[in-house]
Order: sequence, then structure tokens, then C-alpha cells
Amino acid sequence: MTPSGIPSVDTPALLIDLDIVRRNLQQMQKNADNFGVALRPHIKTHKIPELAHLQMRLGAAGITVAKVSEAEVMAQGGLKDIFIANQVVSENKLNRLADLKKKVDISVGLDSPVAAEKLSAIFAASGLTMEYLIEINSGLNRCGVLPGRDAVELYRAIHALPALRFKGIFTHAGQVYGAGSLAEVMEISRHESKIMFETAEALEEAGTLVQIISIGSTPTMKVWQGYEGINEIRPGNYIFHDAIQLSLGVATLEECALSIVASVISRPARERAVIDGGSKAFSSDRGAHGKEMSSGFGIVLGKKATLVRLSEEHGIISLDPDEHLEIGDRVRIIPNHACAAVNLFDRAYGISNGEIVEEFNIAARGKSQ
Amino acid sequence: MTPSGIPSVDTPALLIDLDIVRRNLQQMQKNADNFGVALRPHIKTHKIPELAHLQMRLGAAGITVAKVSEAEVMAQGGLKDIFIANQVVSENKLNRLADLKKKVDISVGLDSPVAAEKLSAIFAASGLTMEYLIEINSGLNRCGVLPGRDAVELYRAIHALPALRFKGIFTHAGQVYGAGSLAEVMEISRHESKIMFETAEALEEAGTLVQIISIGSTPTMKVWQGYEGINEIRPGNYIFHDAIQLSLGVATLEECALSIVASVISRPARERAVIDGGSKAFSSDRGAHGKEMSSGFGIVLGKKATLVRLSEEHGIISLDPDEHLEIGDRVRIIPNHACAAVNLFDRAYGISNGEIVEEFNIAARGKSQ
Repeated sequence: MTPSGIPSVDTPALLIDLDIVRRNLQQMQKNADNFGVALRPHIKTHKIPELAHLQMRLGAAGITVAKVSEAEVMAQGGLKDIFIANQVVSENKLNRLADLKKKVDISVGLDSPVAAEKLSAIFAASGLTMEYLIEINSGLNRCGVLPGRDAVELYRAIHALPALRFKGIFTHAGQVYGAGSLAEVMEISRHESKIMFETAEALEEAGTLVQIISIGSTPTMKVWQGYEGINEIRPGNYIFHDAIQLSLGVATLEECALSIVASVISRPARERAVIDGGSKAFSSDRGAHGKEMSSGFGIVLGKKATLVRLSEEHGIISLDPDEHLEIGDRVRIIPNHACAAVNLFDRAYGISNGEIVEEFNIAARGKSQ
Repeated sequence: MTPSGIPSVDTPALLIDLDIVRRNLQQMQKNADNFGVALRPHIKTHKIPELAHLQMRLGAAGITVAKVSEAEVMAQGGLKDIFIANQVVSENKLNRLADLKKKVDISVGLDSPVAAEKLSAIFAASGLTMEYLIEINSGLNRCGVLPGRDAVELYRAIHALPALRFKGIFTHAGQVYGAGSLAEVMEISRHESKIMFETAEALEEAGTLVQIISIGSTPTMKVWQGYEGINEIRPGNYIFHDAIQLSLGVATLEECALSIVASVISRPARERAVIDGGSKAFSSDRGAHGKEMSSGFGIVLGKKATLVRLSEEHGIISLDPDEHLEIGDRVRIIPNHACAAVNLFDRAYGISNGEIVEEFNIAARGKSQ
């Protein structure tokens, strides 16, 4: 531990403050418990089975992943209840999904008859049944059918396919990352719940039981006031938070658990320092789903300094000319987007009270296919 | 191989067209030979020792890397002549550099007396001598001393330090990526050479021999007309090219060797398709050093379609409503920034005549520290 409170690991390195992690996880779990809903955290943020297990021990009902390869890593790591909040269509991936189904409780999203037929065919051929949730587009305009009638139509088109079992509906109101104010975050959060409740009602009127009504993103869950019918939430980023969450007003600096420690390698001018981490450490994310940060590529802790520009292996810091930051000095920086930064590292250092206490293999990093 | 010319590998996958690679490498080597300069390609673009060896077989004088960890991977892969075009300051990395020095020809950049003293101390303690090049800031305003007098001053401040041997000067005019026209690219290229020649003259007037005068970026080298005194060029991206190079007018689509193949997983509206690759496949790079692409996050080959938006594992394609692109269909996309995309994958598929002929381990991917 150096005097400045930065562990003496070589740089750039990814640090996870485990004390903050624990508080973040407990807080979200408490919210879920208070509203009587299941918490199924999205692990794409951390990609570390040990942290998924910590989420489970603190009360999570299962985990959410973005792709089959993440599910494989998590199943390999001992996680037993996994929801793939995405569409899976390639034959290779559907076969791997069938293999997973033999080992763990797993469910998947669907938003089209075409994908449903592919899934049904492969599972029927293996003598397996797959549980699915219909993906609802609550305004992100990515995947998903429109709420209400379109969801009912999709259900009617696919519910009789062999080897599939309808379990519920899910959405992700990711457009919240473009919100201009906390009031707008709250409005999107309310809307997300409302259209899901109404869609579930429409499906039940059409004669089916909707077991799971699942929503969630970190911003919409941080301001959530509960809503009739909703019984599962799936935030991911809340384990770490990041500069984007700060900019939305849904987290504080004290809740940011992930940081990158970097070293100053050049100080070519009084107003400029260069560190040994660039876009291959921080990612180029300046925001998410439309919003751009005005604060640069991360928050430099404890210094009058802004990370204004990245090239691949360099970060250019604009400095108050009186700021003391010399070659060899180390800085800790909260990245804009924790999920993107984690994916660029192979390992992370868990710290507690400023000391490294654990080293994590980011087991689900990459895993493109 | 599918009818559309896309190999039937699972997606998202990174493809390297080896026929185009060979032509790109031969072309740059021919330019270097014509101007009588050494080509020392930057391998941060591909991070694959086998491709570095191909560059060497075609005539490269050595390779350039961005960090000690890349040098270690390349040395491990059999490369023998490596220049680290960067500042190395941490004790751990300087010790690793000393280890490398015992195995391969290696040189490094310097831009400050502080870094020079650290380097000198560790090499002197090991009984080794390190060759260094002074980094010149030719307008990127990243690392480097200003050309002319500042370079001479740095040389005077450090040349008597033990265990260091001055070899020459280098620069990277990366500001070219913000150029608004091909004329501006050419002007930056000319300027890069001019200030390096003048700085070498100033150093020689101060009484030292400047063995190496090294410049280079892909855009400035693609338009380079040669320049007195310059004897080494260090482009990197030219092995693959990408949408950014296209936008600058220094490469054609036929020269783009790197693509990402992705599958359509959802077609929620006539004007929208969603693919299974997002910012964790393409990176969020919209340009480099200031410029933003208007064409989205990549060039969708053979389709009236634009990759308009990325989330982590989704790419949102805006489509001509008549375009045939259905769930399960595969698309090939030239990424904005090849170097950033490569760093997100663990392996790449080498193709020739549209068939996969080789699988590469991206051995120097990540390697943050």
C-alpha cells in the first residue's frame, strides 16, 4: 500500500473494492426483499463466478447472462440457475444450450417465431424441454416485441411448439442511459413496470399464466418504487457502478467499487500528464445508448485532473497546472463504463481497506462465440 | 462456405483475409524499399506472432510494440528485433525489460530525464546497456518532447547516464486521424518528416550521431513521398485497414482484410435488424484522436444497411426496408478500428478465397500490465 492509498500492483490494473461491492449487493438485495421480488443480477458486468456466488449467498434467486458462452462459464463455475436474457439462434449455440440444460436450470429469451422454431426443433430432437421468456421492447428499440397485442400474438404463434414451455416476460429499458434527468430516469422506470404489467394482463386474458414478469437495469432499479405484478429484477452494473451511473444521479462516488490504477509515464507539459492506460483499458465508451459524458473517459480520484483523451495504450490527462502528478506517480480512475472495462482485463484485484486481498480470474471475459 | 461468401464459423467471429493481408504487406514493403527506408511495423494492430513473422519474411527490419508485455509475447513467439515505441517507467516493467534485453535486440523510447534515470539505474545494476530513441511530439500532443531545441536539451540531460546508448529519434503523427481531407493527411505527413529531419540536424549540430530517424502511422505512410534523412517507418494498421482508414481516403474496401462476421438474432421491425455482436466485438470506437465517423460502427458488406448503434452484445442495424436480412442470416462487417476490435477477441480465423485456412491465437491480446 502506497501513502496515496493505491496498492502497489503494476499498472494498468483493475481494482475491485470488495467492501463497496458487499454494500452495493446488500443494498439492492434489501430493495428486492422490501418489494418482495426476486433479484436475478446480470453478471455481464463482472464476469467472475466468485462474485456471482457472492450475489447468490446474499439472496439472489439466480443469475442473468447475455450469451451462451457466459452461461457455460457460470455453469462451470457452479452457478445453477441461469437466465440468458437474449435471443439464441445459431445451431451451434442451441446445441450448447441443450447441453447446459442437462446440467443446470436454464431459461432463455424469445422474440420471434423463427427463433422459437429453431429452439424447439433442437430441444425436441434431444428430448428436452426449454423454458422461455418473451422479450418485450419497452422503448430501447433493440430486440423484443412491442408490449400488449404483439406479445400476445407471439405467444399464440409459438406456445404450441414442442419442447418449449412459456414462463413469462422480460424487458430491459436500456434507453434510461439516455435520460437527461433523474426525473426522466424515474419516469422510464415507472413506464418499464407499467407496460410489463399490462402485457402480462393481456397474456393472462389470452389464457396463459405469466409466472415471471422481469424487468431491470441499474438506473431503473435504483429509483424503483415497486409495481404491481413485477416479481423479478435484473440489474447488473449496480455491483460496481461507474461514471455513467454517477452522471445519471443514481449512484455516488462512495458506491463506485471498480477503478483502474494507472501510472504517469510522461509529463510533457505542466497542463498535461500521460498515463499507461488507454482505450484498451478504459474502453472508448463515453456513455451508453445515446448519452455522452462531458467529464471525459473516467473520474480521476483525488486530483484536479480530467482524462480527456485516449489512444490505445495512452490516457491523456488534462491537469490543473499546480497539481502534483509526476512521472511514476499512480492514479486511480473510475471508468465511464464498468462492464466494458472489465471485459478488457484478464484479471482483477480485490481490495479491502486499500489492501489487495484477492485476485480474480475474469473467467467470462471475451468468450465471443 | 455459405452462398453469401461467409464462412460457416459461429458468430461473432473475427476473420482475417490472408490474401488481402499479403497484398497490404507487400505494398507497404515495396514503398519502404522504393524510398530506401526500413519498415518496422507496429504489431499492436494484429497482436499475432505468426503475422509478425510474415511481415519479417516479406522484408521488415524488425517490429514495433506498444508495451513490455507485447514485447514479451513477441519475443516468446520468436521475434528478435523489437522497438517499444513508448515510455516505460515502472520498476517491475524495467526489470522485465532487462530480462528481455538478455534475449533479443530491444530498444525503447524516452521523453524525460526522470524516465531515463530509472531506466539507467536498473540497466546499470544488471550490467546491461539499453538503446533508446527520443520521442518527439510532432503534433499529437501525447508523449514526446517538442522538436528541435527541446530534443537537444533532453539529449544533453541524459546522454551521459550510465547504461544508456542514444540511437535516434521517433515520432507518431497520430493527429492525422483527425484530418478533414486527404490534402490534410498529406500535409501532416510532410510536416512529420520535416520536423524530424530538422530535429536530427539540430542533434547532429550538438555533436551526436542520429542513427535512426523513425516516423509513421498508416495514413501518413500511405501518402508518403519520402523525405531526406528519414530512414525508418512504423505503420501498423495497414496490415488490415478499417473503416477509419477508408474515411480518411487512404485505403479502399478491397484493402480491408479484417472483418467481423455476425448473425442476425432479431428482426423486430422492417427497418431494424439486431446482430449478435456489440461493443464487446466491434469496440465503441467511432473514430480516433478526435474524428467521429458518420457511417456508424462499421461497414456492412453487400447490404443496404448501417450499424447505427451498439450495446455490449447487440448491434443494431438500420436497414433499407426492402433489404433481405432475416433471423439466422450472417453479415460481414468491416469495423471502424481494427486494432481495437482485435483486442476484444481471443482468436481469429484466417481466410483465403473465402475459406477458413488457419486459426490464430491472438497471443498479445489484453496483457494489460
